[in-house]
Amino acid sequence: MNREKLITLMKQRESFLCVGLDTDIDKLPPHIKQMTDPQFEFNKAIFDATIDYAPVYKINIAFYEAFGTKGWRSLEKTTDYIRQSGKDVFLIADAKRGDIGNTSSQYARAFFQKEISGLDFDAVTVAPYMGVDSVSPFLEYPNKWVVLLALTSNKGADDFQMIKSDHDKYIFEHVLEESSKWGTPENMMYVVGATRAEMLKTVRQYLPEHFLLIPGVGAQGGSLEEVVANGLHKNIGLIVNASRSIIYASSDKNFEKNAEIEAKNLQMQMKKFLSLSQII
Amino acid sequence: MNREKLITLMKQRESFLCVGLDTDIDKLPPHIKQMTDPQFEFNKAIFDATIDYAPVYKINIAFYEAFGTKGWRSLEKTTDYIRQSGKDVFLIADAKRGDIGNTSSQYARAFFQKEISGLDFDAVTVAPYMGVDSVSPFLEYPNKWVVLLALTSNKGADDFQMIKSDHDKYIFEHVLEESSKWGTPENMMYVVGATRAEMLKTVRQYLPEHFLLIPGVGAQGGSLEEVVANGLHKNIGLIVNASRSIIYASSDKNFEKNAEIEAKNLQMQMKKFLSLSQII
Repeated sequence: MNREKLITLMKQRESFLCVGLDTDIDKLPPHIKQMTDPQFEFNKAIFDATIDYAPVYKINIAFYEAFGTKGWRSLEKTTDYIRQSGKDVFLIADAKRGDIGNTSSQYARAFFQKEISGLDFDAVTVAPYMGVDSVSPFLEYPNKWVVLLALTSNKGADDFQMIKSDHDKYIFEHVLEESSKWGTPENMMYVVGATRAEMLKTVRQYLPEHFLLIPGVGAQGGSLEEVVANGLHKNIGLIVNASRSIIYASSDKNFEKNAEIEAKNLQMQMKKFLSLSQII
Repeated sequence: MNREKLITLMKQRESFLCVGLDTDIDKLPPHIKQMTDPQFEFNKAIFDATIDYAPVYKINIAFYEAFGTKGWRSLEKTTDYIRQSGKDVFLIADAKRGDIGNTSSQYARAFFQKEISGLDFDAVTVAPYMGVDSVSPFLEYPNKWVVLLALTSNKGADDFQMIKSDHDKYIFEHVLEESSKWGTPENMMYVVGATRAEMLKTVRQYLPEHFLLIPGVGAQGGSLEEVVANGLHKNIGLIVNASRSIIYASSDKNFEKNAEIEAKNLQMQMKKFLSLSQII
């Protein structure tokens, strides 16, 4: 999906919500756990319940990979279901991949080339540590995206991302500055944790146009209002992810309904911000 | 496999060679390509031909993941074959994973918990960008290892790993220094590219005891002699990987024989260095 279509989709759904399918078998409702393919059944139900409120879905690959071949099959079925739903969705593989060029090319195949891998994502999250040739193979696919880690929402983000360089910049700033030469706002986005919303102003100095994928609203404690105040621009430029707060809103028979309520609640807040900014 | 057993195995095989199974379907011999599961058949033949010379094998996950469920099955069959061969092998998943804690826990399951994922690796390569909580879940498994990226062998390594901090250290030095507090030489190793063998002296200042996984000898142009001069210690402390130079030594009917010759050639050089250092 290209940038223009993504922005149009967000305006149509009056939302920049990303629902994160971090589908942890241990946390699924008991009646879902008993099914043959619990991860797929759960994802299907969550997708159907939330699709009116979310233009973007993010599938956390680790939760499927943990089950080997079986998990990979659940992942494939989930993406097939989403793609065959007749609904437009911007679909992110949250995979944090990245390796030397010939290997990153294989990862790009895995997530972008359906005829080979069975998977048809729009974007994949990539770790920056190995530099330009670990990222560029993903950028060779038209209308596909890299979502590069810049400033993450976890405690360990301080360990290296927040080291100051001899140019008096944080390492994450070097990542923003250098990597913005590798692609364009049409094929690169960045992960910036909502738990560091005050840093969004700094990020916007380097990347006035790019979309930012913001995890950490909800279970991790970030504020949507602060994210919007510091990150929203006239072409929206934000994808705000909520995973656990939506998909595990409850674990009873009505889990879909409760997930829908949570997603709708976030969407209505987003709609308000989009209206206030005269974007819709 | 614990450290003591790994060192014993290396001494028995008189080798610190790691054969990299970066099994690229496009590069396989024509008669293998025609088989039902070319990646598995190729790996089986390469393993049988090289096992006398290599205590360590490294499977590059990307090359399997590119084929989705089918590739994941080839990966599982390969690890099963190696584990059922009756030969001791230290087996590395070259996966470059790493995410927030609850997600890294899932990746650890994927590579370490055979009863869940079907895979039984001894070690997994991990990217350091997200810091301590992205690495520590892998360290909770007894006798399993993290191989952390420190200084890689590719061009893009300069982009961020070689940035100088305001403490006048390279970022990769911060990674070595900080992360060495997270584990021990019994459960952490580090990737240091052979193309930067002169940096091994610096690495050894931070990590006198740790094992280092050295890619880049062979196809990428690194020198084994330099690596040994700067990295070998009394408990060996080196795993030198060769992938393409061994597994694609030829692409004809005799590919196993040629792979064996290449592996044996490297093993004989290693044996000489181990003898000269009075380790064997």
